Amino acid sequence: MRLLIANANTTQAITAMCAEAARAAASPGTEIIAATPRFGPEVISSRAENIIAGHALLALLAEHAGQVDGVVLAVSHDTALEAARQLMPCPVVGMTEAACFTACLVGGRFGLVTFGGVDTYRERIAQHGLAGRLASLVGVDATPQESVRDPEGVQRKVASGIARAVSEGAESVILGGAALAGYAARMQAEAAVPLLDGMACGVKLAEMLVTLKLPKPSAGSFAAPRGRNSIGLSPELAAMLKG
Amino acid sequence: MRLLIANANTTQAITAMCAEAARAAASPGTEIIAATPRFGPEVISSRAENIIAGHALLALLAEHAGQVDGVVLAVSHDTALEAARQLMPCPVVGMTEAACFTACLVGGRFGLVTFGGVDTYRERIAQHGLAGRLASLVGVDATPQESVRDPEGVQRKVASGIARAVSEGAESVILGGAALAGYAARMQAEAAVPLLDGMACGVKLAEMLVTLKLPKPSAGSFAAPRGRNSIGLSPELAAMLKG
Amino acid sequence: MRLLIANANTTQAITAMCAEAARAAASPGTEIIAATPRFGPEVISSRAENIIAGHALLALLAEHAGQVDGVVLAVSHDTALEAARQLMPCPVVGMTEAACFTACLVGGRFGLVTFGGVDTYRERIAQHGLAGRLASLVGVDATPQESVRDPEGVQRKVASGIARAVSEGAESVILGGAALAGYAARMQAEAAVPLLDGMACGVKLAEMLVTLKLPKPSAGSFAAPRGRNSIGLSPELAAMLKG
Amino acid sequence: MRLLIANANTTQAITAMCAEAARAAASPGTEIIAATPRFGPEVISSRAENIIAGHALLALLAEHAGQVDGVVLAVSHDTALEAARQLMPCPVVGMTEAACFTACLVGGRFGLVTFGGVDTYRERIAQHGLAGRLASLVGVDATPQESVRDPEGVQRKVASGIARAVSEGAESVILGGAALAGYAARMQAEAAVPLLDGMACGVKLAEMLVTLKLPKPSAGSFAAPRGRNSIGLSPELAAMLKG
Amino acid sequence: MRLLIANANTTQAITAMCAEAARAAASPGTEIIAATPRFGPEVISSRAENIIAGHALLALLAEHAGQVDGVVLAVSHDTALEAARQLMPCPVVGMTEAACFTACLVGGRFGLVTFGGVDTYRERIAQHGLAGRLASLVGVDATPQESVRDPEGVQRKVASGIARAVSEGAESVILGGAALAGYAARMQAEAAVPLLDGMACGVKLAEMLVTLKLPKPSAGSFAAPRGRNSIGLSPELAAMLKG
Amino acid sequence: MRLLIANANTTQAITAMCAEAARAAASPGTEIIAATPRFGPEVISSRAENIIAGHALLALLAEHAGQVDGVVLAVSHDTALEAARQLMPCPVVGMTEAACFTACLVGGRFGLVTFGGVDTYRERIAQHGLAGRLASLVGVDATPQESVRDPEGVQRKVASGIARAVSEGAESVILGGAALAGYAARMQAEAAVPLLDGMACGVKLAEMLVTLKLPKPSAGSFAAPRGRNSIGLSPELAAMLKG
Repeated sequence: MRLLIANANTTQAITAMCAEAARAAASPGTEIIAATPRFGPEVISSRAENIIAGHALLALLAEHAGQVDGVVLAVSHDTALEAARQLMPCPVVGMTEAACFTACLVGGRFGLVTFGGVDTYRERIAQHGLAGRLASLVGVDATPQESVRDPEGVQRKVASGIARAVSEGAESVILGGAALAGYAARMQAEAAVPLLDGMACGVKLAEMLVTLKLPKPSAGSFAAPRGRNSIGLSPELAAMLKG
Repeated sequence: MRLLIANANTTQAITAMCAEAARAAASPGTEIIAATPRFGPEVISSRAENIIAGHALLALLAEHAGQVDGVVLAVSHDTALEAARQLMPCPVVGMTEAACFTACLVGGRFGLVTFGGVDTYRERIAQHGLAGRLASLVGVDATPQESVRDPEGVQRKVASGIARAVSEGAESVILGGAALAGYAARMQAEAAVPLLDGMACGVKLAEMLVTLKLPKPSAGSFAAPRGRNSIGLSPELAAMLKG
Repeated sequence: MRLLIANANTTQAITAMCAEAARAAASPGTEIIAATPRFGPEVISSRAENIIAGHALLALLAEHAGQVDGVVLAVSHDTALEAARQLMPCPVVGMTEAACFTACLVGGRFGLVTFGGVDTYRERIAQHGLAGRLASLVGVDATPQESVRDPEGVQRKVASGIARAVSEGAESVILGGAALAGYAARMQAEAAVPLLDGMACGVKLAEMLVTLKLPKPSAGSFAAPRGRNSIGLSPELAAMLKG
Repeated sequence: MRLLIANANTTQAITAMCAEAARAAASPGTEIIAATPRFGPEVISSRAENIIAGHALLALLAEHAGQVDGVVLAVSHDTALEAARQLMPCPVVGMTEAACFTACLVGGRFGLVTFGGVDTYRERIAQHGLAGRLASLVGVDATPQESVRDPEGVQRKVASGIARAVSEGAESVILGGAALAGYAARMQAEAAVPLLDGMACGVKLAEMLVTLKLPKPSAGSFAAPRGRNSIGLSPELAAMLKG
Repeated sequence: MRLLIANANTTQAITAMCAEAARAAASPGTEIIAATPRFGPEVISSRAENIIAGHALLALLAEHAGQVDGVVLAVSHDTALEAARQLMPCPVVGMTEAACFTACLVGGRFGLVTFGGVDTYRERIAQHGLAGRLASLVGVDATPQESVRDPEGVQRKVASGIARAVSEGAESVILGGAALAGYAARMQAEAAVPLLDGMACGVKLAEMLVTLKLPKPSAGSFAAPRGRNSIGLSPELAAMLKG
Repeated sequence: MRLLIANANTTQAITAMCAEAARAAASPGTEIIAATPRFGPEVISSRAENIIAGHALLALLAEHAGQVDGVVLAVSHDTALEAARQLMPCPVVGMTEAACFTACLVGGRFGLVTFGGVDTYRERIAQHGLAGRLASLVGVDATPQESVRDPEGVQRKVASGIARAVSEGAESVILGGAALAGYAARMQAEAAVPLLDGMACGVKLAEMLVTLKLPKPSAGSFAAPRGRNSIGLSPELAAMLKG
């Protein structure tokens, strides 16, 4: 099967890093292709950027509709996830969504450790209906830049964030955000509970949904758009709204 | 004060209709200006359209930043509301949000009656934190076209939707969506509870916030973006992300 | 319009202070009148006092029914708010309720900082249906007396309470209780997020509701009482129950 | 032990009826005394009456403080329950509260069937923290007068309300309100699940709390008032606030 | 009446200790008998042990069905409580359930202090529908062994756990688990709020339910099993499933 | 990989049917083995049977520990799921749990249609933390026997149950319980939304978890039992508790 790893920001290096993580997680028969939006924010770190990136992501997906069997959104805020799911004829999974649901299958309540602010993660997890299974949200006081400059120092901060999540009742811990890619594998040995990586979980859940071959709904809010007019959109996106 | 009535779809007739409703509700000293996005869906009736319209709306708002004292989003899904609030230096209010909070001040639980599907309204109200005050969501089986063709028939359907909401515990009823604009005033006389119109509530709450003169936060997820790079956005929107 | 600022305790100095705050917030055309109950507790600091003050407040309101266009309850527990709303022919707003809903329109989750115990505030906010938007409740260890004796020391404690609320995710902070009146304006400059004052929010929301001219419901739990008999109540209150 | 059955309305016939029900439920060693407020509404059927009755009830309780071992509030809205609990030196139980918690011990979710509107019952049960265990709220379209005039017709309506509650998932059903006193015993034989009577449950839970001999808290929101000044209250109530 | 105190682990010393506590709490006319399962874990300290003990407990109860008037489960996880309630022809109460509901009747939110992990207590309290009334869950870092070796040191730890629960808003505190039996009585004098003992609460609530004489439901998920076939169960348990 | 399909009742025909469904869903490299408990109820249709079957299931799993790479519980109540997860050194997935989480990945809220009572399903879904994503629970009035005798009549009832779930907001529908095995595939063509089969979802999610190679936690409530003594259990189960 072909899975599209769709970044929602315009930084190709992040796309490449996520594609690599996806290939490491993919099953033998899975081909990973990756794509970066043509417009939008370089990095998504605020509410406004997230909305803009949502449009950019849908435009990107429209270019691949019909050519891939499934999509993993390589963006930690699950940007435009529900809209992408409605638009595309194939399964779409968000990387943080995937990590959260995998954490549920591991058991009990989970924690999420990330760089910086956690408010929008709290909202997103609540929108997934999982507020009751969230034990702890930890914002590590570090930046992606710092993690390049002082990897060991940052890793110590992340380890302390994981320990705090466990002490607050987390039975597994998600490491959220592209900046923490690769940390789960590196830090698992010393952690008391499973560490979850969004790209790995996303690829496995997308593969699983593709093989289930569930049909697209013909009713409800996830039925494909049909007969919708628009102005100034990319031809591919406009065509998909038109149905 | 100057209030911007910002439509999120590209249908100028709807912008005009909302501006008229806003002017009817505005205080004497309030100047209403209205604007329509340069791109995006003609009407927002699905998840994908809503995301695309979010970007279009932010681009529109960026053109008016600094020139208005407050914004009312003239779109029933409160499209991109939180992002707009972060982006703009002035208060921003969504029309359905405004109606919901006004309903709370009227007392008890409220109902919402609209045309068509109600799933995304349920999600939006839950995101506003008001799931516990929602008594009833009624999707009237009618279309905007039908309301032009058979206004009396449609009004009977809406009246029956209002009655059902009241029987399910609603102590006030919001008439949601542009297609129901004007119905509240027309149908209030025969209704047992107050009927709420999103544009009227939105204008009054925006006026109220403007006069309160609350400062823009310097921390948290509603602080203005600063130093953010982007590609391919309108100059005004790119400049606002840059700070 | 005429707005009644109704205290629920019997301390006229607090009524006067609230009336002054209300006048500062009122629009040019708004006349503020203020009133104090004829019986009840000097200060409301417990559950029993709150119930007693509820009756005193309703008796007070009954004396003004028909002579005012709206009411703001100048009592931080929103004492008897729902009953007052049912009883009166005009809009009624509670000062903490007003601050909470205004905080929602500012965005995200809010904090509340007050003197002393916070348990009953938690319950009241949950009754307003806003538990999901409450990020932090901070009880500052200080008394109204202390704030007279050592204003700077108390202000430092309040500042530290605000900072704690922000660190717990508050995107705006309500300063609750009459003893903190005036602190919002004084402390806003050094705060990272908007500080909200219940009297100011209450006056603006009451003005807004008055101008909306919503009808009194004829059904449901907020319809005016009618034909109800009673013993030993003030003539005005007994008459209102009688309808 | 001595239990006070405290009505909150001023209708002595209801007090007498509740006292009789209490005596039927009481253990051999329990003495039931009953009392009626000196002022307030004849019947509590709205929000305003409920608040007024709260004061009347506290004044009544203050007259009995120290002379009874426990109190059962003989009023279906659990009027002023938390305040009474704070004020009194002995256990206080509300009749609907008692029925709800007993229903929980019977297992699963419960239903509540009453005459007239159910909105305020929904709020009260949510305040007790039991919204998640409420399966069904049924307002039977009948009046106390009708139940005197056409007892069989009303009983059929109640039976149909019970059946509806069971079909909505209730594993026990509370018959709420003084007007339904005695119905539980009469209708149990034909009901598929246990029917709960508030007075019986209240007396048994009050007896249980009295024998547990739990101390009055010295901290928190249920500690007795102390040093509180007031104006115009009954001497007994003023004295209790004074401590 | 005869109450069965049913342990769910196989340690007879714990059964004896619980029976003693039950006798201390029982009313004069109540006969306490106690029983220990014939198989299962010595102590229940994990999820797997709890499930196994559930079967052992039901087998034990089946031996006493018809010979006792009520059952108190002497196991802090309320092991198999709902199943026992369905199976038995008489009332069944869990000791932690009993303490939680008694805490509700004392007022406000409660805390629970126990030895070791608290995750499964959080889940159990949520299953009872009481998550909203839980203020604080404190796992004291001590073992039953330590409480024998250093009773004063452990008591200091428990006192500090109680103080933390009160500071987090608990208006009463449950001491959970057999290892804390007897601590409530010993530590009450220095505690600011009521301390609740599960066995005492369980016995009183079981007595209360027995005297209410509620019928067994004939419908719903608590109706007795009937006509169910099984393999390899104790004759008594198999017979009860058969009905 | 080797997946164990573990039935929790003692009816081998159901085990065989589930194994067949599992093989149909399994990936090429997955070997399906199936097993039936040695004791317990023939069918699980009540609370008591479910608890007994939990022990039987754990005893069965203990016989396979170390010999399989993952487990799918072939029982619609997810019997003893959390305990099995703690006990086993490999991933364990429940069939209804699997269907619920898959439904979440399909988007929006889901419905569940099953034969008979739905109360315990509601509780189980709430325990999974998914109450907020459950749109509709429909108990079809039919029995497994009837579905053999009149397959077309029963299929019409199921179709009507699916339609009701969709009308109540379900964007996908789970067909729950062994008696509905095979219906999803047969009825998908005429359904407006995806139909989910628990065995298929369970196998795919178990495969996914196995390939993720997450470690067993060393802390928290899912860490393997160690050093626990017991009486009268199967040697394999006793050994696993001993660690």
